[in-house]
Amino acid sequence: MSRMELDRDANIRQAQPDFTWQSVERMPYKEEGAAPFHAISRQVLFCGPELECELRYFEMAPKGYSTLERHEHAHAVMILRGAGHCLIGNRVYSVRQHDLIRIPGLTWHQFRATQDMPLGFLCMVNAERDKPQLPGAEELAEFSVDPAVAAFLRGAPLE
Amino acid sequence: MSRMELDRDANIRQAQPDFTWQSVERMPYKEEGAAPFHAISRQVLFCGPELECELRYFEMAPKGYSTLERHEHAHAVMILRGAGHCLIGNRVYSVRQHDLIRIPGLTWHQFRATQDMPLGFLCMVNAERDKPQLPGAEELAEFSVDPAVAAFLRGAPLE
Repeated sequence: MSRMELDRDANIRQAQPDFTWQSVERMPYKEEGAAPFHAISRQVLFCGPELECELRYFEMAPKGYSTLERHEHAHAVMILRGAGHCLIGNRVYSVRQHDLIRIPGLTWHQFRATQDMPLGFLCMVNAERDKPQLPGAEELAEFSVDPAVAAFLRGAPLE
Repeated sequence: MSRMELDRDANIRQAQPDFTWQSVERMPYKEEGAAPFHAISRQVLFCGPELECELRYFEMAPKGYSTLERHEHAHAVMILRGAGHCLIGNRVYSVRQHDLIRIPGLTWHQFRATQDMPLGFLCMVNAERDKPQLPGAEELAEFSVDPAVAAFLRGAPLE
């Protein structure tokens, strides 16, 4: 294949088995120790100078979870694989394939896979964005007042 | 359900059968007569003041096609359903579920479903963008020099 053909082909990245893509690196979710998370990977699907947003694919193994955090920027999420739960603000939702989830700015949120299935989702986000904030002890105590939220946060099996 | 609960639920829109979503309107692709297209619908999944991009879902019935056009803004596409072909620049690609397609600025492009399957795709695009341009007779003649492109443009069955 000539160089010119390679360049043309950079416009297509074929789907590979198990929710990976040609020429897309499967990366750690975050730097280890930066914040609490478990069994989650990150793939950047679209990111570039012509687009004001990025599209990423995050995947959690069964029992995996993302960091409980908030930030000024919003997230636009579509579940692509499996099922799980997410906390948005002070409410826990059950989510499954192709559900759409909007996480407004400065709203606490976390995703968790179920006990026996992975959870994979697309996340659209502004290219320029602020860093996540982590909850303090007081905020964590407030979350735990609601039994459903407390069960979610400790990773208990949920319906 | 109280008004407050309704507002909270606006953060989740559940997937419905046949690639539609709760509270998402299935709209015409474009105004009829504005440009050539066939059997294609549009759903806006995410669009809002907190996001610099929009995420749309387009779906073509079997034999359906989008407009052959170009514009300064780029597209970032993921096939979500079915299979088909797309023209990017002067090359025809076969595409299927979860493939990623980058359409750079000012690049002619068109999507076509296969003869017997729908083709549905997510398209991420900048919220602020220019209007599409349509090809003139000279450009259409240039496309038709390549037999593969000519076959694509006339909707012939492709491998």
